[in-house]
Amino acid sequence: MHLRERVIGTITGIFKKYGGVPIDTPVFELKEILTGKYGEDSKLIYDLEDQGGEKCALRYDLTVPFARYLAANGIANIKRYHVAKVYRRDQPAMTKGRMREFYQCDFDIAGQYDVMIPDAEIVAVLKEVLTALDIGEFLIKMNHRKILDGIFAVCGVPEEKIRTISSAIDKLDKQSWEDVKKEMVVDKGLDEIIADKIGTYVRRKGGPELVDSLLEDSELTSNKRLKEGLEEMKKFFEYSKVYGTQDRVSFDLSLARGLDYYTGIIYEAVLIDDAPVPTAPKNSKDEEAQTRIGSVAAGGRYDELVGMFASSSKGKVPCVGISFGIERIFAILMSKYEQSKLRPNHTQVFVMSMSDGLLLERIEIANLLRQNNISAEFTFKTKPRMTAQYEFCDKNLIPLAVIIGKDEISRGVVKIKAMSKEAAVAAQTKNEGDEVKVSDLVAEISRRLCL
Amino acid sequence: MHLRERVIGTITGIFKKYGGVPIDTPVFELKEILTGKYGEDSKLIYDLEDQGGEKCALRYDLTVPFARYLAANGIANIKRYHVAKVYRRDQPAMTKGRMREFYQCDFDIAGQYDVMIPDAEIVAVLKEVLTALDIGEFLIKMNHRKILDGIFAVCGVPEEKIRTISSAIDKLDKQSWEDVKKEMVVDKGLDEIIADKIGTYVRRKGGPELVDSLLEDSELTSNKRLKEGLEEMKKFFEYSKVYGTQDRVSFDLSLARGLDYYTGIIYEAVLIDDAPVPTAPKNSKDEEAQTRIGSVAAGGRYDELVGMFASSSKGKVPCVGISFGIERIFAILMSKYEQSKLRPNHTQVFVMSMSDGLLLERIEIANLLRQNNISAEFTFKTKPRMTAQYEFCDKNLIPLAVIIGKDEISRGVVKIKAMSKEAAVAAQTKNEGDEVKVSDLVAEISRRLCL
Repeated sequence: MHLRERVIGTITGIFKKYGGVPIDTPVFELKEILTGKYGEDSKLIYDLEDQGGEKCALRYDLTVPFARYLAANGIANIKRYHVAKVYRRDQPAMTKGRMREFYQCDFDIAGQYDVMIPDAEIVAVLKEVLTALDIGEFLIKMNHRKILDGIFAVCGVPEEKIRTISSAIDKLDKQSWEDVKKEMVVDKGLDEIIADKIGTYVRRKGGPELVDSLLEDSELTSNKRLKEGLEEMKKFFEYSKVYGTQDRVSFDLSLARGLDYYTGIIYEAVLIDDAPVPTAPKNSKDEEAQTRIGSVAAGGRYDELVGMFASSSKGKVPCVGISFGIERIFAILMSKYEQSKLRPNHTQVFVMSMSDGLLLERIEIANLLRQNNISAEFTFKTKPRMTAQYEFCDKNLIPLAVIIGKDEISRGVVKIKAMSKEAAVAAQTKNEGDEVKVSDLVAEISRRLCL
Repeated sequence: MHLRERVIGTITGIFKKYGGVPIDTPVFELKEILTGKYGEDSKLIYDLEDQGGEKCALRYDLTVPFARYLAANGIANIKRYHVAKVYRRDQPAMTKGRMREFYQCDFDIAGQYDVMIPDAEIVAVLKEVLTALDIGEFLIKMNHRKILDGIFAVCGVPEEKIRTISSAIDKLDKQSWEDVKKEMVVDKGLDEIIADKIGTYVRRKGGPELVDSLLEDSELTSNKRLKEGLEEMKKFFEYSKVYGTQDRVSFDLSLARGLDYYTGIIYEAVLIDDAPVPTAPKNSKDEEAQTRIGSVAAGGRYDELVGMFASSSKGKVPCVGISFGIERIFAILMSKYEQSKLRPNHTQVFVMSMSDGLLLERIEIANLLRQNNISAEFTFKTKPRMTAQYEFCDKNLIPLAVIIGKDEISRGVVKIKAMSKEAAVAAQTKNEGDEVKVSDLVAEISRRLCL
């Protein structure tokens, strides 16, 4: 939980630095708000029992409630962030980081702006967050709905097969082209010629040079939306260069993403295990062999979602956003720390007595420390055992102890003791059991804890 | 939301200082866990629809899930805190701060300790939090379930009427004794002699001297539980004096609290409008006339709750806790701040262009600032209007602007401008539009923002 607080603190700190405003939406929405927004995954929505009111469901993500909120409050532009839990009626699989209840951490930019500027900023936020969290090498895979749809149109995929072919293509990060082609042709009945033609496009990835080469393909650019998408990607890379994010971005024509509401650029950040940062990724066998740990953040542009909840046509608000999968990030960071080295609490000083109990004196000393913003604890017993007090310090890795004795108290002194070797080092002292005047105690402890 | 973050930060900071560990429990529990814990209010529990799994409900408070968590994980002692939302299927009344979904902020001490020590510490946490939040004068009303039950027994209240008489007594803070007596005698059929006898006790409040005087009443002390309760209160006041909380505590024999699970000390913090701190409250007409804004925190000891969820008898874990009603605290603090003075975001610098657009240059400058941990924004347009940029700064009370012009950029300089009189004062400058080298920009802005 402490690690969780630290991670969330890092992320929201960056959100604020980019002008983000926190907005909180309720954990449940009217059922109809959520219906028809999540494609196949709609079956995972948690419904509330109708107890004589409206039909409600638990939020499935933070994006749809945000769009509903913008429409309901007539907000035309905002940069918002939201850290909260979402709910999916799934079979939990802890090992895969799949749970029924988990945190999402979202940043979104809503408003009518010039093309690709907010999109490039969101990707800058994405890069800065993952860099700050220090979770290892990562790659931001990026595609554009207009480009993907355009390619399907140019290749001749029938309208009614676009969704299913799209989801087959999305598996190219885990499966070979042969398997994906088989799924399209055998399972989904796509013409083999069309499948092969799709294959010449969707297996490509790269940087701005790939955009340029696709823009030279007159068959592609004859499709208006596809050309628009490519020009937007070109713009994106122009801004990305200034934002300093270009080294992390891989334009990947196989990225599809399942959600219904995306209309423009889409992206997904994946970790790359033990691999160098691919500055100019190529469609090589080597790269495909890179171990993919999985997606830690994803998002895209959704220009139509707010309009769905608005009463008039002027209620349309274009949006672009990113959602961090906090549970996965925790899992990765947890494995980097030695579990035992994580301190369970923040307590800096344990106030203990040698033998006589001295409860009131222990309360007084703890009080004195707390009043000076030093976190302190003591055992809630009138006569605690010495060993129990020591064990508590060890278990909680508490760095310092103040030890009270009847004789010392009468002389107005207490003892300070470093409770472990690490603590002694951290507290910049090797001394044990130094006597110190009660009147100097706060100053002495502050010095030892480097406060 | 920013105020909310600050308030929660203050509270959790204090929780940590007392050794608190954050624990998170799920937003839904099995329905049976919540059943029979909340008395009459059980009808406000939100049930989830049975979609082919267990029967679940949304948590009603953070206490019952905490107790369930302790039992499930076999935890025998812990100091935990938890800030999260709870759910009540009530008719929302915003003016009364009553909502269906709201935050609670809980601190609990679980474990087998010596009598009244953790209880006194919880009250110290309560006093420190309310003092730190600076929400005005407050009083901690306190009673003990054993004392209240004992008084009912001594006065001869029939067993089956105890609950309903208890809830009538609880209204003594809002109603006159005559009205409460009428409710007991006329509406609830209590013998008038019994009612009058109850009245001689429950209208009393005070400090340790009240405990002492009750201990001298042999009719009361003949009841074993009552005597036990009084001795515990005596102990409490002894510790309370050392903790420095005694000035805030009023032993109030009318405090009852509705929840089923309390077994010992119970308390409620109330704000007192424009009244001096009652150091030794007396049962005077004057005091009854004090305006009561309402309860901002409440809690008590619940020694049996964990045991209800444990499989064996050794699963019994005594607990005592406090829950802060954050929404009410927000409402009070919001009314203290001028709404307009609250900054909607944290942005410190707005990067704007004079006329030529200069988008890439604006991105570069914003990037430079952000890399140095200065929060910065700019307009997402290739050629934004000057007035629109100024309006954004005004609306968001952004203190500083960096203004970029084509001519200046070619000379390697930008202008810094304080955006308002307040900002100019805050940024310790009266100068407007000073030219500064781009290479000195971060240092100069840090100086002006006192970073």
